[in-house]
Amino acid sequence: MAQKPTTPKGTRDFSTVEMARRNYIFDTIREVFRLFGFRQIETPAMENLSTLMGKYGEEGDKLLFKILNSGDYLKSVDRSLIDNGDTVRLASKLCDRGLRYDLTVPFARFVVQHRDEIQLPFKRFQIQPVWRADRPQKGRYREFYQCDADVVGSDSLVNEIELLQIEDTVFSRLGIRVAIKLNNRKILAGIAELIGEPDKLIDITVAIDKIDKIGLEKVNEELAARGLSVSAIEALRPILALDGTGAERIDKLAALLTGSEVGSKGVEELRTVYEGSLALGLNAALDIDVSLARGLNYYTGTIIEVKALDTEMGSISGGGRYDNLTGVFGLDGISGVGISFGADRIYDVLLALNLFPDDTTAATRVLFANFGAAEAMASMKLVKELRLKGVSAEIYPDAAKMKKQIGYANAMGVAYFAIIGESELAEGTVTLKNMRTGEQTTVPQTAIYEAIG
Amino acid sequence: MAQKPTTPKGTRDFSTVEMARRNYIFDTIREVFRLFGFRQIETPAMENLSTLMGKYGEEGDKLLFKILNSGDYLKSVDRSLIDNGDTVRLASKLCDRGLRYDLTVPFARFVVQHRDEIQLPFKRFQIQPVWRADRPQKGRYREFYQCDADVVGSDSLVNEIELLQIEDTVFSRLGIRVAIKLNNRKILAGIAELIGEPDKLIDITVAIDKIDKIGLEKVNEELAARGLSVSAIEALRPILALDGTGAERIDKLAALLTGSEVGSKGVEELRTVYEGSLALGLNAALDIDVSLARGLNYYTGTIIEVKALDTEMGSISGGGRYDNLTGVFGLDGISGVGISFGADRIYDVLLALNLFPDDTTAATRVLFANFGAAEAMASMKLVKELRLKGVSAEIYPDAAKMKKQIGYANAMGVAYFAIIGESELAEGTVTLKNMRTGEQTTVPQTAIYEAIG
Repeated sequence: MAQKPTTPKGTRDFSTVEMARRNYIFDTIREVFRLFGFRQIETPAMENLSTLMGKYGEEGDKLLFKILNSGDYLKSVDRSLIDNGDTVRLASKLCDRGLRYDLTVPFARFVVQHRDEIQLPFKRFQIQPVWRADRPQKGRYREFYQCDADVVGSDSLVNEIELLQIEDTVFSRLGIRVAIKLNNRKILAGIAELIGEPDKLIDITVAIDKIDKIGLEKVNEELAARGLSVSAIEALRPILALDGTGAERIDKLAALLTGSEVGSKGVEELRTVYEGSLALGLNAALDIDVSLARGLNYYTGTIIEVKALDTEMGSISGGGRYDNLTGVFGLDGISGVGISFGADRIYDVLLALNLFPDDTTAATRVLFANFGAAEAMASMKLVKELRLKGVSAEIYPDAAKMKKQIGYANAMGVAYFAIIGESELAEGTVTLKNMRTGEQTTVPQTAIYEAIG
Repeated sequence: MAQKPTTPKGTRDFSTVEMARRNYIFDTIREVFRLFGFRQIETPAMENLSTLMGKYGEEGDKLLFKILNSGDYLKSVDRSLIDNGDTVRLASKLCDRGLRYDLTVPFARFVVQHRDEIQLPFKRFQIQPVWRADRPQKGRYREFYQCDADVVGSDSLVNEIELLQIEDTVFSRLGIRVAIKLNNRKILAGIAELIGEPDKLIDITVAIDKIDKIGLEKVNEELAARGLSVSAIEALRPILALDGTGAERIDKLAALLTGSEVGSKGVEELRTVYEGSLALGLNAALDIDVSLARGLNYYTGTIIEVKALDTEMGSISGGGRYDNLTGVFGLDGISGVGISFGADRIYDVLLALNLFPDDTTAATRVLFANFGAAEAMASMKLVKELRLKGVSAEIYPDAAKMKKQIGYANAMGVAYFAIIGESELAEGTVTLKNMRTGEQTTVPQTAIYEAIG
């Protein structure tokens, strides 16, 4: 026999059980998005490389899957690129298109392309796979789904409050206890300004992002190594040591950042989102965390991150506000705010905590045995009747040995195994075996719907 | 301003309205598949080219989208391939992976790869996009969805009868009147045998497939051009002129093909599927059509095609039985039967016949106006309450001019525009504008759920 074919490295098949569980997650997220007035769009798997290149940094460009042009793809290629082994520039001659790397850049392209058809504010959601030529490792795949909801064309912080409600609703419905962390990019900018190192914003945030992992002293060592002055590091200390309730932290930040315009603006935004969320109520804990720097190069205001409380999994959702989403495509003045759910990590959390509902992977409710042509026809008539009443039902297609048929019913996890054999056929009855209790009853065929009710 | 970015040629964005309509189709199909005991799987967008190549003929190989290898993709390339411009062989050196071309080959790969985990008979469905580097034209895209249901590991004709019930149920639920055409590849083989031209099976079927379009005489001319003898063409005449009810046609075919073993087997299979379907009942017309040759190189038994009756659209669904699905991957003895729904064509039929339900594209039920911080907070509390009761609701994020907010409510098609202004806030009331009737009522905030009921 030939060698078994396989999926490409870093990609996965999803079995019927995995799909049932994944659909439980996607359906929950989709339903909440809709409840909140977000509407779905889809974009093609492939985008022009001109749309994708330069949007994810140099490293990101390398991680784009590029699609070889059709036809004579060598025609317009400068041979010197080949001779010099200039694979990077050559790739952009061989390939005009690539697979989407995330949902954000295609969404920005969508907004610009369809700007005359779109009503602002535009509340869209999108649930589609993305592809990255990353080195595969545990929990990191080359194809994975993103579930994004964004509002563009509105600066109002009402949007942030709404998105936090979405986070809270999704995880409440899934039964996952979470903490939502909240920060604001403007506060980080204010801090950098305050300690006299406005140009070192990135260095500072990269370092303090590690405070949970390596502790304050190590962070300070790293800050020194990154060229921060002793006085700057000293000035940072009270900010990093921030404690108390959320309201207390906000008050302390307000006091500390009073001399920074951008910092004060950030505190004000944070306060509005925080207080609004508490007034509405959240099941989740809401934590003010100035060390949160997620996607810093990208976000310009609110930064959100969600972690599961009862298992170590890192972030399972997050997002933030970004100014000028579409500026890179020549359309200025469109700001937005959005969140993204990591379906794979949510899957792992639900599995680890045994939170998938029991009926998630349930198959049809009734499987009919097959004893041959005449019995099968009588069974199929009942199957049809049940389906018309909305009950999922099926018949084993072959008149196989009963042991095999029952084994199938067991493996599929059906609720009832229904038998119309010779005597049931003669008497117009059906025998129902409750697969959970093992109990067996014979009822008139006309009473089957009630019997399995 | 820069030039507007666009989607790659032959690919499409789906707007919120288009997605709502597409989801109506996908949800209907998915629900019916589940009702019938089919379970969903997904496979990766990319497959190893070794899995895909050679499965769709030479033309198909050319239409595969191939993905450029990562890293130094020139490393192991023989320069003579470049110098000779041998783009076909070069492509298989530059690319190890390609995008799936259909759902059938990945499914066959899936069955072989996971054969130890799969319980036979395996009833799977799959709804995913496929990609073909075809020349784009009206109604033909480079990315489109396929919706497939197949049973593998069972030779029983019960499966065919079940699949016809699925066709009937899906189109009944969608409100599309259809005719289902039925044939059997073994009958076509029997006919070729009968007229003494067993090697010309393909020629014969290609020609008679056109009988509806060009008429009997032109078909006979074409058969002569393809090298059929005058006596063979004469022998074919009664078969092509087959008329009467389905039962009569089957009887005539049985009589005509009595001398052919394979032909008689085909008639017997056709009769079982036809009579079983009539006994169960179908809303659709069920037509015996020996000129139906869909996917002939592929199917080995039953052939199914579905056409919409009230609009010219060609086939909107179809399928058939194939032996040895997985033989090409070294696993023999797995036969199957399946059907596929063409979502794009079904979309066009529903649109042309105005069959999309009115509420398909409905947005949230209630949109709250935004008059500023205090009023917005009171509104958001009601929004939250409605959502907890399962009512989709939202608030306009900005305290914009009322005309703009009402315009948005109109554009989104919400049922109610809810207003908590200064006086409503003071009085604990909410004013509800029914957007369809224009009627306006003011009710206590505590009574909003009942008021919009």
